[in-house]
Amino acid sequence: MSNKQNSDIAIVVLSGGMDSATALAVAADKGERLALLHFDYGQRNRLQEQRAFDALAKRYDVEKKLVVPMDFLKIIGGSALTDEKIPVPDEMPKNGEIPPTYVPFRNGIMLAIAAAWAEVIGAKKIYTGFVEEDSSGYPDCREIFVGAMEKAVNLGRRPESEVEIVAPLLHLRKSEIVKLGTKLGVPYKLTYSCYIGGEKHCGKCPACRLRKKAFIEAQIPDPTVYSNPAGAG
Amino acid sequence: MSNKQNSDIAIVVLSGGMDSATALAVAADKGERLALLHFDYGQRNRLQEQRAFDALAKRYDVEKKLVVPMDFLKIIGGSALTDEKIPVPDEMPKNGEIPPTYVPFRNGIMLAIAAAWAEVIGAKKIYTGFVEEDSSGYPDCREIFVGAMEKAVNLGRRPESEVEIVAPLLHLRKSEIVKLGTKLGVPYKLTYSCYIGGEKHCGKCPACRLRKKAFIEAQIPDPTVYSNPAGAG
Repeated sequence: MSNKQNSDIAIVVLSGGMDSATALAVAADKGERLALLHFDYGQRNRLQEQRAFDALAKRYDVEKKLVVPMDFLKIIGGSALTDEKIPVPDEMPKNGEIPPTYVPFRNGIMLAIAAAWAEVIGAKKIYTGFVEEDSSGYPDCREIFVGAMEKAVNLGRRPESEVEIVAPLLHLRKSEIVKLGTKLGVPYKLTYSCYIGGEKHCGKCPACRLRKKAFIEAQIPDPTVYSNPAGAG
Repeated sequence: MSNKQNSDIAIVVLSGGMDSATALAVAADKGERLALLHFDYGQRNRLQEQRAFDALAKRYDVEKKLVVPMDFLKIIGGSALTDEKIPVPDEMPKNGEIPPTYVPFRNGIMLAIAAAWAEVIGAKKIYTGFVEEDSSGYPDCREIFVGAMEKAVNLGRRPESEVEIVAPLLHLRKSEIVKLGTKLGVPYKLTYSCYIGGEKHCGKCPACRLRKKAFIEAQIPDPTVYSNPAGAG
């Protein structure tokens, strides 16, 4: 994807959604030696997410990948994504409200596991697709959290294995993410965002709404097939 | 174990070793409503640790317990405890050296998962048996790490679910831990420390050496059955 070459390994935490796929493209563009990390935590859309992860790994020709089972997140529960009894809302959360799709400290756990893997494979960077503004309102996507977690990670491991948590999309609007990714050639058709987890994107859940809005605002054709194309606001 | 009663739930991260069992006794003595958390990460002594965990839960009459499978730590590897190809040393690590039994960022991952569970069950405290001095030389047992992790945990979750990471043994010597635990009635006979994972404690690995030393220095009879009683230095 790039002629640049970097000798350091960089882990990309890749759900298979549009944000993490764009973060992957940013890392690839910087010439990082890539290692891809995916989590299966019993989320409603786990099969579609993993399909997207595999397709992106293939497209970016990355051999080094790890899929981590985190069934315990389903046991811990507390989220509409892991507990079928809590419905996924049709509407976007109100400003400042933490929505029921928030999975308790999921990103903290993911970063902790990424940090462990980074130490063993010698990765110097962990790329994430975290978005703070124009996003889902999750506390574990905020810059203040990422900075604190990076500090904790570096104090709790071998001193020589210092790692940087990179969040290149943190302050971008969704439309800016799509523009950046399009410039970098992200195959958005291979990515999957829908919280519900059907074959097609539902078009109505908050993740689908953010996805649609991103392409509309960016004035870039949306390659996604929605089962409810008119559903988004 | 105590007449005091506290309305808050406190999670105790309980490996089943002597330190975490003592932390459990401290929490029980404070009258906390207890919830016990154990991790099965494919460690050599997983069966013995889990037996100790179950026995302690029964002895302290705690119903709320969670055993989290973390097989991925075995896949990530990088430690003598999870990778059978890396031998467990017979000797204590040199001062300042991180020994091969260190499991990359294990305590960070455990605390992250504990924080997720704390958020869902409304726990206000997470007790750990971390020991900084007179211990195994792990970076993720240090006070500076615990403080940084507590900060990250509280920035990455719902603001109303503030949690404190309690490490009551952090600055105690092993002998002081045994004295404290004995005063609190810890059934050390039920605890298990050996890295090797046999029915009896091996008496030679660093964890057994620390265990023996603790009782000897505390001048308290050691209830442990060692297969190599003369092995320790």
